[in-house]
Amino acid sequence: MTTPAPRYTGVVPPTLTPLTEDGAVDDVSLERLVERLLAGGVHGIFALGSSGETVFLTDEQRDRALEVIVKTVGGTVPVIAGCIEPTTPRVLTRAAAATRLGADAVVTTAPFYAIVGPHEVERHFRAVAAAVDLPLLAYDIPVCVHTKLPVALLTGLAVDGVLAGVKDSSGDDVGFRQLLLAVREADVEGFSVLTGHEVVVDAMMLAGASGSVPGLGNVDPEGYVRLHAACVRGDWESARAEQDRLTRLFRIVDAADPATAGGATRGVGAFKTALQLLGVIESNAVSLPLRPLDGAEATRVRTELELAGLL
Amino acid sequence: MTTPAPRYTGVVPPTLTPLTEDGAVDDVSLERLVERLLAGGVHGIFALGSSGETVFLTDEQRDRALEVIVKTVGGTVPVIAGCIEPTTPRVLTRAAAATRLGADAVVTTAPFYAIVGPHEVERHFRAVAAAVDLPLLAYDIPVCVHTKLPVALLTGLAVDGVLAGVKDSSGDDVGFRQLLLAVREADVEGFSVLTGHEVVVDAMMLAGASGSVPGLGNVDPEGYVRLHAACVRGDWESARAEQDRLTRLFRIVDAADPATAGGATRGVGAFKTALQLLGVIESNAVSLPLRPLDGAEATRVRTELELAGLL
Amino acid sequence: MTTPAPRYTGVVPPTLTPLTEDGAVDDVSLERLVERLLAGGVHGIFALGSSGETVFLTDEQRDRALEVIVKTVGGTVPVIAGCIEPTTPRVLTRAAAATRLGADAVVTTAPFYAIVGPHEVERHFRAVAAAVDLPLLAYDIPVCVHTKLPVALLTGLAVDGVLAGVKDSSGDDVGFRQLLLAVREADVEGFSVLTGHEVVVDAMMLAGASGSVPGLGNVDPEGYVRLHAACVRGDWESARAEQDRLTRLFRIVDAADPATAGGATRGVGAFKTALQLLGVIESNAVSLPLRPLDGAEATRVRTELELAGLL
Amino acid sequence: MTTPAPRYTGVVPPTLTPLTEDGAVDDVSLERLVERLLAGGVHGIFALGSSGETVFLTDEQRDRALEVIVKTVGGTVPVIAGCIEPTTPRVLTRAAAATRLGADAVVTTAPFYAIVGPHEVERHFRAVAAAVDLPLLAYDIPVCVHTKLPVALLTGLAVDGVLAGVKDSSGDDVGFRQLLLAVREADVEGFSVLTGHEVVVDAMMLAGASGSVPGLGNVDPEGYVRLHAACVRGDWESARAEQDRLTRLFRIVDAADPATAGGATRGVGAFKTALQLLGVIESNAVSLPLRPLDGAEATRVRTELELAGLL
Repeated sequence: MTTPAPRYTGVVPPTLTPLTEDGAVDDVSLERLVERLLAGGVHGIFALGSSGETVFLTDEQRDRALEVIVKTVGGTVPVIAGCIEPTTPRVLTRAAAATRLGADAVVTTAPFYAIVGPHEVERHFRAVAAAVDLPLLAYDIPVCVHTKLPVALLTGLAVDGVLAGVKDSSGDDVGFRQLLLAVREADVEGFSVLTGHEVVVDAMMLAGASGSVPGLGNVDPEGYVRLHAACVRGDWESARAEQDRLTRLFRIVDAADPATAGGATRGVGAFKTALQLLGVIESNAVSLPLRPLDGAEATRVRTELELAGLL
Repeated sequence: MTTPAPRYTGVVPPTLTPLTEDGAVDDVSLERLVERLLAGGVHGIFALGSSGETVFLTDEQRDRALEVIVKTVGGTVPVIAGCIEPTTPRVLTRAAAATRLGADAVVTTAPFYAIVGPHEVERHFRAVAAAVDLPLLAYDIPVCVHTKLPVALLTGLAVDGVLAGVKDSSGDDVGFRQLLLAVREADVEGFSVLTGHEVVVDAMMLAGASGSVPGLGNVDPEGYVRLHAACVRGDWESARAEQDRLTRLFRIVDAADPATAGGATRGVGAFKTALQLLGVIESNAVSLPLRPLDGAEATRVRTELELAGLL
Repeated sequence: MTTPAPRYTGVVPPTLTPLTEDGAVDDVSLERLVERLLAGGVHGIFALGSSGETVFLTDEQRDRALEVIVKTVGGTVPVIAGCIEPTTPRVLTRAAAATRLGADAVVTTAPFYAIVGPHEVERHFRAVAAAVDLPLLAYDIPVCVHTKLPVALLTGLAVDGVLAGVKDSSGDDVGFRQLLLAVREADVEGFSVLTGHEVVVDAMMLAGASGSVPGLGNVDPEGYVRLHAACVRGDWESARAEQDRLTRLFRIVDAADPATAGGATRGVGAFKTALQLLGVIESNAVSLPLRPLDGAEATRVRTELELAGLL
Repeated sequence: MTTPAPRYTGVVPPTLTPLTEDGAVDDVSLERLVERLLAGGVHGIFALGSSGETVFLTDEQRDRALEVIVKTVGGTVPVIAGCIEPTTPRVLTRAAAATRLGADAVVTTAPFYAIVGPHEVERHFRAVAAAVDLPLLAYDIPVCVHTKLPVALLTGLAVDGVLAGVKDSSGDDVGFRQLLLAVREADVEGFSVLTGHEVVVDAMMLAGASGSVPGLGNVDPEGYVRLHAACVRGDWESARAEQDRLTRLFRIVDAADPATAGGATRGVGAFKTALQLLGVIESNAVSLPLRPLDGAEATRVRTELELAGLL
């Protein structure tokens, strides 16, 4: 294989956005969180993604969070900034902000809310790329936007230089493998394929992924960095063992009672609670209409952290 | 039945937002459009809804469009302003703008993009209502937000005074009928149930709806006003005949080639093209990633307008 | 409009299949059920549909149920027999049985389980019609087969004489209205459009439906016959009042605890329980994996029957 | 790890059912196909699965196909027989046939067509297991049955001895990994977890799968046997290389024109065409409403076979 290495590789956690009890961005906690990720050896930061509650934050809060992240990272690793809005014009507004605030790359999803077909989806990515100076990644997250980005579209946009990479949260490992094969065959220079699924990183790395964007990496960055290193050196047994430990840890997302907590509450709520228990962030507050985990739920998170050797 | 009359009744078209060729809000065309609706006898204006391309507009454009609408309406009929954002904090930002700009009521959907369950959906509407001074309507549009608002939830929120009404674009006539029965039985004061489906207004009025929010009403407001009047006076044969004419006219949404046009392009694109052909708005431009209808497609729209007696 | 009257009109209940406690078809109860429907004035019988538990019955049980129905009806009204199987060859096997057992027409759905596209769906209906001597109706029930039959397909098949009618359980009133308009404009001889949604029969009759296939018609055939008569004579206020009463009665489907009962249990289970309480059928037994309603749930059904004046 | 080895491991291809041009089961071709699989070293046969067109075959055809398979296999490897019917009573009919005809195990899906909830799904598997003497596997295929089997349900049924294994065609690698971890932690004796996704076998084996049920294994059994062997001996680089070759070969499913061919036509149609080109089966005929691949499409299949070194 003589294809140039992908531009974005390794562990690129989708940073949470810590909040104060009254809903403001908690700068100090965010700084501490980012510093801990960097100390853990991560290879990049994915700001303002789904785990970062980006669709819950006002534009001012988004700007503030990105500012803190960029400043804390200080150019040591790339910062990829989520520009998550339903349509092209609104994405462009966010991309302008990301550019102004010093992000290294931007990432956007297929349009959502708007009822669009494949032509609109393609036009969306092409229009964003044409208007933005930074590299553009596609964020494939059908569970949120209800459109799956087809392998042929992604490959075509890669070949045309529209996209610099993909973050895959589609849960479609078959399509993921086919995409990896297609971009390799097309010999696309520097194209990055990152998996967003924290419990199958070893498997997707074996399949040829460039790296991962693990929400759980907020909680255990060192674990993901070890896992990535094992994959890179071809030590698949160690990778599998580390992944199994992390898959077990991922059960913190089952801590919140599903009878009163939807997916975002269970996920972001658990990650924040874990980081609060670990002393990294001040509060486990989440944005409305989510709710923070309560005491009994936090106890369950604590137990998993202890089992994983983090507490 | 002694329940007080619903607050919002009659024909409440979801106003389009005319754009200039370079994507700005076309104030003059918008004013002309609203004046024509008022002249046609409509009973309210639904601003910044799906037909108004609200998720395509920047906040500045949304403000501008609402300003023009409120000023043109001049208090003659209520203006219900869409506050369509994925989550509670962002909806509140828009609701503040709507209040400031003089809307009479606000309307919001279930959360979208965010992965939420029934508890978050209920918390969302309660939190918005608690924070906003204007009456709040729920916009039930699962095709866009991928959550159907259950009859029991809507009825409960109506009884608790959280909601002043519902705009139903769910396509679920069974649930619509059950909701109508439930709010009538609960004797909810002034609660409005509006159908968003322009081709079944007669049927839904027979079922007990308060009125309609017909996208096609932008094109033929007088037709919908006649239809509503026939329903109100119990002249169901006339209502049916008028509805059949309008259902035929609705075929303008089939003018755009589905091979290259998604739902929003076909719908909003056709409405705008019709209004351009009718001399009401200057351009049929739509927001990216939609595309305007081309010449051949516009010819098909023209044919339907002629068949309907509008040209 | 000079189009000939549709072949199947009026109230065509989808007959339940009463079972004994040990799961056999209860011939005596079935006979009594059908006789009560006929006495109530229904205009046809829809045998072996979803309400008839057809996908739960063995082929022998299906044959037995159809035999009893055909014999009891004795040619007084048409019997339309469901041939509900995933694919063409298996539907043909059932259609042969229906023909042999004396049905007047057959009805089939789009393929299910098999992953098919529009071409396969069209080929399916054409192949069934070509192989079967009886008139063929399409059963549009996306909630079960996960394919919606498009208006253009149905209209085309109607024009080509492939289909004699449609039973619509799609919950898509917009498509239903467009279909009604399209077949009327195409002047299709004798084509029947029947709604399967028992709570909007008045509205769909106003929209131009030929009749209804109400599951709840098993419980209150006289109510549906009165409703149909009111619609036919244009007395829409009476139709609406009767429909409102029946919509209220339909709440028996909320009697079973949703925490332990899926949709089929709640629906068929409630209908059977009601008929048992009314003394029409011996047992409220349903097929595995459904469960019969328990005592507390039956009490709720009884209350609704009393409110509706049936007990 | 001291858990006993899973009962079913290795490569267990879901055998196609070759048909004659007039739609009968082609015994001779089927025998030849099975013999080639055995000669290729497969570890089991999955009969009457989705690839075997089971929902297209009449009961007589299903019996005939299973008879031929069991006889040809002659006890050298286990035969797992699909009992794919919408509901419990009908599955039991097929399970009785499978038992009578000498299958070693049976496999069934969640109910389909019927509208059921989690309780009915669980009752279904428990009722089937209770009534059948052979080991029972669950077939998790939401794309066909529109229900995903939850990890907690599968684990619970495994622990209770209801299920002997799972064939996963869910496309949900996250759930797959969590299931593997859960059954390992629960120390379930001999439980088998087989992946049905032919392009990620290496990755899923790394994650801990027992084996695979690859439709493409009909075409290249030796490739899948080599792939499995590499995984078992921990030679992940060889496994990945073999998997990449097979992922490329899987592109035969893109040979049929998607404008006129749905998923089943493209998949089963391509596999049959490949086997016809390889001289294993007589005809590439498929069941209605599918269509066989045409000449141009077959040429594309041939090209892929050549690239893969099979022709």
